[in-house]
Amino acid sequence: MTAVLPALTDTRELVLPALRAAVNRLDDRTRLVAAYHLGWCDEHGVPIEANGGKAVRPALALLAAEAAGGPRESAVPGAVAVELVHNFSLVHDDLMDRDLERRHRATVWALWGDATAVLAGDAMLSLAHEVLADSRSPFLAEASAVLATATRELIRGQVQDLAFERRDDVGLTECVDMASAKTGALLGASAAIGAVLAGADTTTVRGLATYGEQVGLAFQLVDDLLGIWGRPEVTGKPVASDLRSRKKTLPITWAIQNGGDDGTDLALWLRRDAALEPDDHELRKVAGLVERAGGRTWARDEAWRRVTRAAEALAPLRLRDDCRRRLLDLATFVVERDA
Amino acid sequence: MTAVLPALTDTRELVLPALRAAVNRLDDRTRLVAAYHLGWCDEHGVPIEANGGKAVRPALALLAAEAAGGPRESAVPGAVAVELVHNFSLVHDDLMDRDLERRHRATVWALWGDATAVLAGDAMLSLAHEVLADSRSPFLAEASAVLATATRELIRGQVQDLAFERRDDVGLTECVDMASAKTGALLGASAAIGAVLAGADTTTVRGLATYGEQVGLAFQLVDDLLGIWGRPEVTGKPVASDLRSRKKTLPITWAIQNGGDDGTDLALWLRRDAALEPDDHELRKVAGLVERAGGRTWARDEAWRRVTRAAEALAPLRLRDDCRRRLLDLATFVVERDA
Repeated sequence: MTAVLPALTDTRELVLPALRAAVNRLDDRTRLVAAYHLGWCDEHGVPIEANGGKAVRPALALLAAEAAGGPRESAVPGAVAVELVHNFSLVHDDLMDRDLERRHRATVWALWGDATAVLAGDAMLSLAHEVLADSRSPFLAEASAVLATATRELIRGQVQDLAFERRDDVGLTECVDMASAKTGALLGASAAIGAVLAGADTTTVRGLATYGEQVGLAFQLVDDLLGIWGRPEVTGKPVASDLRSRKKTLPITWAIQNGGDDGTDLALWLRRDAALEPDDHELRKVAGLVERAGGRTWARDEAWRRVTRAAEALAPLRLRDDCRRRLLDLATFVVERDA
Repeated sequence: MTAVLPALTDTRELVLPALRAAVNRLDDRTRLVAAYHLGWCDEHGVPIEANGGKAVRPALALLAAEAAGGPRESAVPGAVAVELVHNFSLVHDDLMDRDLERRHRATVWALWGDATAVLAGDAMLSLAHEVLADSRSPFLAEASAVLATATRELIRGQVQDLAFERRDDVGLTECVDMASAKTGALLGASAAIGAVLAGADTTTVRGLATYGEQVGLAFQLVDDLLGIWGRPEVTGKPVASDLRSRKKTLPITWAIQNGGDDGTDLALWLRRDAALEPDDHELRKVAGLVERAGGRTWARDEAWRRVTRAAEALAPLRLRDDCRRRLLDLATFVVERDA
């Protein structure tokens, strides 16, 4: 991370102690695995200087609570819960996708095997609801429903993602639907849960949910752009990592569908024998193909269109002015980030 | 199943529609997988005559609610939730243990692969909390905490179970602790959640939880006995299936620790090359070893001791008399069942 929004640093101070307390409830083994995955220690349990990820979801939860007129503190259980659900899905997705590394570190299944990854993910998902229940919030039912619905969407998105890998006719609409489920739903839930726990009315909760969903889609579009054109020294990923794994991301799907001859060439390249590992020269050529086909410009524009829709969703709501400003800054940050 | 307690049939009528409605919320693919696992359809979605399992957990939840003076209906969301958590753990355990069959049918991972099993399990765990949240019960916080704590215990038990497979020095105390976590916790939670949703006081909830935990341990002890001496035509499992897989169950662990020379012989046999598949003659000899070492008698006695403790836990509680009777019948049924 080069750029960190100030809001995100504040979030960590409020949320991290509660997240640690929650993880401490787990049995010794699962606690170690979760702490490792969360970047708090190495695989032997020795504490390390944590980068800790972007913590966008907890930041959204706290900010939404404040925007709705509540204290940030009321949203802490929700912030912990969405971060746990996010990390449950990362651990299980890494296993399903057989990804060996995340943020320069071995993934849980790669280090400890499949069973440990299954159990650590399960534990974090269950812990998310335990934290919510223990909050004894008068708005628990709605908060828990928001979290569970988003988890159902996450799962639906991953089911689609895995099915798409076996198809070469996936259209943009399906692809956007999948990204909405995999990324939009939990960011929407993060904003919604913060507002719910602050006692906001239904209109405010729905508006903030839409804001979060749109920011989530912008987030995914930028992730897809960074997966092709991100600077390896900043993202920590290899050059054109998504092209290397022949991932059919949003800009690529758009380029194939709308990019004329360049799009057709791109589709042909993606269908080629995946066993042939492309070199950096070839990857740069393919990235050029996506760019000429218009995929890069479309994705960038689409990310900004989503940010605009997020802003629109906030417009009719009665929110604290300084918080509205920070919500918009957060949306902008999501598009402008370079890692 | 040869013997079915009448209470269990009634349970199904009340709980099954709610369970089906919950599963119907899942995406098409995950819904098919969950419905298959629950015994409602074949792998293509064609409905089949369901055996549907013993449904002991939902039965306990409804019975506990009634015993505590509430209507059975108040416990339905809890009954659905514990059944979903139970099935989430079966689907994930089958994957981790690489078991190919459950109740004469291919397991989810064996049929559709690892990713599908991970996702179907995740979906059922999350759905359990969604069903609870949607109940809008005034006792949601406590019910959700009961469920999450039991899930944490389930996971701790499975972590232990996997660790024990790599050790040959597991003592009885650890083994009982593992069985309490894997089986006792969720049966305890089933009884507790029913009482909680019926608005019972803490003493009643705790007493019913202890009852359920003890019944759970009795259940496991009998499972272990059936895994060695069960009649294949009734259990649907091969002769001495647990010996075949060299599983260190409770009667075996006891026999090794307390069974003198026979126990030592048993320990030596278990350590032998697992690649050599034993024939039925050899398995009968080993079963004889466990029996002579006293493992069979101990497990049977211990199961009854647990039932006695379950009865003791109920004794001081103010419960409806007919329900107390049925709770005791259920505990007895658990020990006397032959499948």
